[in-house]
Amino acid sequence: MTRLRMGMIGGGLGSFVGPVHRIAAEMDREIELVAGCFSSDAGRSRAAGESYRIDPARAYPTLDAMFAGETARSDGIDFVSIVSPNHHHLPAARAALAAGVPVISDKPATATLDEARELAECVRTVGLPYGLTHTYSGYPLVREARARVGAGMLGTIRKVVVEYPQGWLAGEAVGKQAEWRTDPARSGPGGCIGDIGTHAFQLAEFVTGRKVVELLADLAAVVPGRAVDDDCTVLLRYDNGARGVLLASQIEVGEMNGLRIRIYGDKGGLLWRQEVPNTLMLHSLDGRTEIVHAGGSQLGPDAASRTRTPTGHPEGYLEAFANIYRDFAAVLRGEPAPFLPGIDDALRGMAFIDTAVRASRDKAGWVPLTV
Amino acid sequence: MTRLRMGMIGGGLGSFVGPVHRIAAEMDREIELVAGCFSSDAGRSRAAGESYRIDPARAYPTLDAMFAGETARSDGIDFVSIVSPNHHHLPAARAALAAGVPVISDKPATATLDEARELAECVRTVGLPYGLTHTYSGYPLVREARARVGAGMLGTIRKVVVEYPQGWLAGEAVGKQAEWRTDPARSGPGGCIGDIGTHAFQLAEFVTGRKVVELLADLAAVVPGRAVDDDCTVLLRYDNGARGVLLASQIEVGEMNGLRIRIYGDKGGLLWRQEVPNTLMLHSLDGRTEIVHAGGSQLGPDAASRTRTPTGHPEGYLEAFANIYRDFAAVLRGEPAPFLPGIDDALRGMAFIDTAVRASRDKAGWVPLTV
Amino acid sequence: MTRLRMGMIGGGLGSFVGPVHRIAAEMDREIELVAGCFSSDAGRSRAAGESYRIDPARAYPTLDAMFAGETARSDGIDFVSIVSPNHHHLPAARAALAAGVPVISDKPATATLDEARELAECVRTVGLPYGLTHTYSGYPLVREARARVGAGMLGTIRKVVVEYPQGWLAGEAVGKQAEWRTDPARSGPGGCIGDIGTHAFQLAEFVTGRKVVELLADLAAVVPGRAVDDDCTVLLRYDNGARGVLLASQIEVGEMNGLRIRIYGDKGGLLWRQEVPNTLMLHSLDGRTEIVHAGGSQLGPDAASRTRTPTGHPEGYLEAFANIYRDFAAVLRGEPAPFLPGIDDALRGMAFIDTAVRASRDKAGWVPLTV
Amino acid sequence: MTRLRMGMIGGGLGSFVGPVHRIAAEMDREIELVAGCFSSDAGRSRAAGESYRIDPARAYPTLDAMFAGETARSDGIDFVSIVSPNHHHLPAARAALAAGVPVISDKPATATLDEARELAECVRTVGLPYGLTHTYSGYPLVREARARVGAGMLGTIRKVVVEYPQGWLAGEAVGKQAEWRTDPARSGPGGCIGDIGTHAFQLAEFVTGRKVVELLADLAAVVPGRAVDDDCTVLLRYDNGARGVLLASQIEVGEMNGLRIRIYGDKGGLLWRQEVPNTLMLHSLDGRTEIVHAGGSQLGPDAASRTRTPTGHPEGYLEAFANIYRDFAAVLRGEPAPFLPGIDDALRGMAFIDTAVRASRDKAGWVPLTV
Repeated sequence: MTRLRMGMIGGGLGSFVGPVHRIAAEMDREIELVAGCFSSDAGRSRAAGESYRIDPARAYPTLDAMFAGETARSDGIDFVSIVSPNHHHLPAARAALAAGVPVISDKPATATLDEARELAECVRTVGLPYGLTHTYSGYPLVREARARVGAGMLGTIRKVVVEYPQGWLAGEAVGKQAEWRTDPARSGPGGCIGDIGTHAFQLAEFVTGRKVVELLADLAAVVPGRAVDDDCTVLLRYDNGARGVLLASQIEVGEMNGLRIRIYGDKGGLLWRQEVPNTLMLHSLDGRTEIVHAGGSQLGPDAASRTRTPTGHPEGYLEAFANIYRDFAAVLRGEPAPFLPGIDDALRGMAFIDTAVRASRDKAGWVPLTV
Repeated sequence: MTRLRMGMIGGGLGSFVGPVHRIAAEMDREIELVAGCFSSDAGRSRAAGESYRIDPARAYPTLDAMFAGETARSDGIDFVSIVSPNHHHLPAARAALAAGVPVISDKPATATLDEARELAECVRTVGLPYGLTHTYSGYPLVREARARVGAGMLGTIRKVVVEYPQGWLAGEAVGKQAEWRTDPARSGPGGCIGDIGTHAFQLAEFVTGRKVVELLADLAAVVPGRAVDDDCTVLLRYDNGARGVLLASQIEVGEMNGLRIRIYGDKGGLLWRQEVPNTLMLHSLDGRTEIVHAGGSQLGPDAASRTRTPTGHPEGYLEAFANIYRDFAAVLRGEPAPFLPGIDDALRGMAFIDTAVRASRDKAGWVPLTV
Repeated sequence: MTRLRMGMIGGGLGSFVGPVHRIAAEMDREIELVAGCFSSDAGRSRAAGESYRIDPARAYPTLDAMFAGETARSDGIDFVSIVSPNHHHLPAARAALAAGVPVISDKPATATLDEARELAECVRTVGLPYGLTHTYSGYPLVREARARVGAGMLGTIRKVVVEYPQGWLAGEAVGKQAEWRTDPARSGPGGCIGDIGTHAFQLAEFVTGRKVVELLADLAAVVPGRAVDDDCTVLLRYDNGARGVLLASQIEVGEMNGLRIRIYGDKGGLLWRQEVPNTLMLHSLDGRTEIVHAGGSQLGPDAASRTRTPTGHPEGYLEAFANIYRDFAAVLRGEPAPFLPGIDDALRGMAFIDTAVRASRDKAGWVPLTV
Repeated sequence: MTRLRMGMIGGGLGSFVGPVHRIAAEMDREIELVAGCFSSDAGRSRAAGESYRIDPARAYPTLDAMFAGETARSDGIDFVSIVSPNHHHLPAARAALAAGVPVISDKPATATLDEARELAECVRTVGLPYGLTHTYSGYPLVREARARVGAGMLGTIRKVVVEYPQGWLAGEAVGKQAEWRTDPARSGPGGCIGDIGTHAFQLAEFVTGRKVVELLADLAAVVPGRAVDDDCTVLLRYDNGARGVLLASQIEVGEMNGLRIRIYGDKGGLLWRQEVPNTLMLHSLDGRTEIVHAGGSQLGPDAASRTRTPTGHPEGYLEAFANIYRDFAAVLRGEPAPFLPGIDDALRGMAFIDTAVRASRDKAGWVPLTV
């Protein structure tokens, strides 16, 4: 009956993602934030700890201090959540795993593909759970979409269009998050492709159940002086020959967080949009269009089990995020969580970023995606 | 830094509203559920306590036991949340207030207007905080709408259309909630008018800042054999002469939770829909239409302070609900919370139900609404 | 193979409705505008005739001149279309029928109920075709909705909500059309109720196939100094006991031409919106929602036969209007046109206006609607 | 005051596009269909003429007969409209121009780029008007979009996403139109790219006012056995360096005619969708979103002059088409029609098809687009 105890790495004052992880982790009362290394500045870490209302003694200034302190307690943390900028992910995960602490991490898994390989090696060696917070695969209707595709309702998948338009980096990068995300030293070589392109990539593989085997990438830094890509077009080929297009951009003024996916097979098609996440459109070859409603009686078990409110009571981003944490809690309790993104998604995502960035830079045309 | 400790009354196994209150209350980490009297059956109360992961000793079988037990502890509850069927609201609130425990309650406040008057008297005598969870007034864009109306952007309000269509009671009432809501002994004399009509009524007063002074009600039990109304039309007159129409129904097949409000003044109009809560439409007399986005830079402080995610990351019902609890937590800490619905809304809501039920039954035409 | 020859009464320079009738009448090449009495001012009638590109000799200054001139020709008009302000409808129709010329008329049929009765008497005596341009019943998906309701897909109809919000008269009435529509000498006693309320009333009877037998009306002139109603709420009872609500307004700032209808039975529900006329939403009791697309393969014969483009090529207001004229052309050729609104709709519409205006003025509560 | 007289080439029985051109041409009463060579089969041409209700003597079996017959009449045709399959376009246009008859033609202009060059040479030599019916550039809000972009409201254009999804060829090609469109002997080397890709290409150049200078194409025949492309991805570079993506498909099940365009500059963004053509979304860098309504008071002269109904009375595909004909009529009368697509668009469109087909076949990567 006790809750799993979470430590957080990153997520200091002014962070968007820290509080989001905290709310998501705790929503189902299976997890409780109890400790954190929120900042490498001791004072700032303590202040963040206060804002989270945790025991001041458990707001640590360093990873070492946290793992030492927590492993010494009988009620020490059961896992850590890594929410710091990308270049911190690997050292943080390594330190946690070395201390015997399972890891759930923000994406992308690391800053570079080499780091991801090192991480994967480490995870496999240590044998502890590792989760990756691809939030959008936590939406109930995304799981419903996956289930329906898996049940063959669309027939053989032929075409995927996945788009992730944003506009928040159309001007100068202002603010803590904008700054590190456009700094290759902290974000890694991928900008937009790493921040949101990976989400789109993972979502499309998640829903279709198909793997990308080849891609053609055209990335650009549109805003003058930007050091990483902010606008990406990637053509995809899936392992069954299906064609895909992935569009991601952070300079599309007026776009907010417009992730959406359309999938077409020889028997049907579907559309899901993150900004209106509680409806799923299904088309069949005979001309019928059905709207599937979140929380409704038409849902299969994968979606229904990850729903907290009845139809018409909208769930959103935080609830989707909470579903990822619920999956991770299940894993920690030794239960199955087949939809939790893990180290394989981590590697695939980093390979996607790496391959796309290099192929675009080299104008290489179609290149294989290997992990 | 410590969290406020909440006890729950009602919300036992199978309850929809109990877990919703728990998630909402805890979302901002200002409140923690620690105790409850979830059922009058001791075993069921204990089982519910387990599902909420609270200390088994604090899952009480009776209100007396809970208040006795909790007031004896140094870490006893700071307030109770009442989520049981309507006819339990008054005794539960009375017991809490008598024990010196503040109350936040599901709506409607009581089963009958007489009970509401007794409750109001009790609240005023005791002088403790009392909150009423009119969830929908917790949505950020509802607060934005109120702020814009208050700032005169619509000019003088002339017309309000507030609708609350649902379809879940179009057939026989099946299930725990459906059963008590259609049983006048437990719901009070109002069915649909009490369950959702009051929400619509409160929302319209909340956003316009105007009070209803007269109404004409036409309520019916459409499903054969139903003992309370399930379809309601109410014409309204506001204190400034504005005209209003309130439609609420639970037999409109296919409608989920379609609360929506349109307000028109002599300078502009607005539309907000609960099922797509993250956009607010604003019209001006010169033909312009603007979409205001939740989380966006166009929001005033009332909305911005009740937002947890940036634009495009949809917030929903649970976050709106959490805003009501955040307001209540503020009150408990002695801070202002001008938007928290309280005992006045409780009285007005019950007067609305009582007046509408009687006026409809008597075919009385226009009648005054007095509190 | 020759086209039917149309004369127009009204529709002079600056008219909105004249050109609309002309386009609609001619769209399917079954009808041709050849003559008109566009204005009682000879010069203005001639100028209007030029704008319509008709033979100048056939732009008449008076009705007498037109009927004399046209009946003397071997290629004289086959019918007239009356598009002048309401108070001209009866004299124009009477003159046409006296000259043996069939009539299609803008709605409402006349300015007053007494006039409508006189018109009905006249139509029945003369035995010539009479059509009434309730445009909205010409939309293909409105006919599809009627067909599906008729086939029992919604079960027994229980509830109708029909709304017609507009905002163009929220300020002072400026312009030719606004002026006559707010002048009871020209519009008749009904303002908004006559201009658009009748459309909503007719649409609801058309789609449900049920007749209103009782109503309760609350009409007001919201804009200071206005001589006719500009905001209307009408409660309806249908002949099978179904409940209805009709909302019509011309002071709802930002609303354009938002006619929409929702119908609920014990087995299903539907929604159609004039501003997005190419989709029809269908709900069933089991929680399914289907979107029916105009032009799609799911349509029955009534809708399919009134469709000119395939799915995704939007049809609109003019095409719906043209369907009414196509029906009228069929009648003139002696073919069946079961959906063409005629003299019965004319009488019902005028009785609706008259009853609503009087009942509202007298605060009469529920009153019968008799024709 | 007399109407321009139109002859039609193609558009025989069962044609979708013939009646559409006829309705569009005649809508504003500036043009009248009087003759046609609807089929190379004399009986079928005559039958089609009957269905159009034209003088039977003017339904010709051959082009020669038509041009001979019509040029001999004092009331002969003023121009021809070519609506036959692509491979007929060049001979038909050549015959018309040789007979001194101006031409308006369905797109693409010809079956091959070589033919288009020959056509252009011919048009320039003869010096007669030539129009190309890129229907979508006739929508009022497309013209409004162009005007706003031209006025700098979006700043410097950086990114264009234009999509044209359809699903009608997801299965076997059944029916007259499907058959010729998938037959390279009749459609030319381009399938989807020629049928709808050109529309998307032209629309994007039209609205942005920028020219494509380079492209990367990935076309495929997804349906087994299909001889032309049915799914196209094309990356674009505009003359100012702006990036573009063009997606066109005819195998996306459930998509109807989903042409849509999004354009982003450094100051703003816009979205227009053909299936909901009466609203235009405008975003500005400060977070504001405005909806521009067709027929509304916010429109500039280019849009307002091509609007026939007030806001809220939806116009659609036929009205947009009619605007192209209105432009062409203006040209014939010697008036300016700056928005009418002409021989330059014809050449650019064919160069686009030819370049995309070859570049995709050769996996050529980025290639220049030259005309």
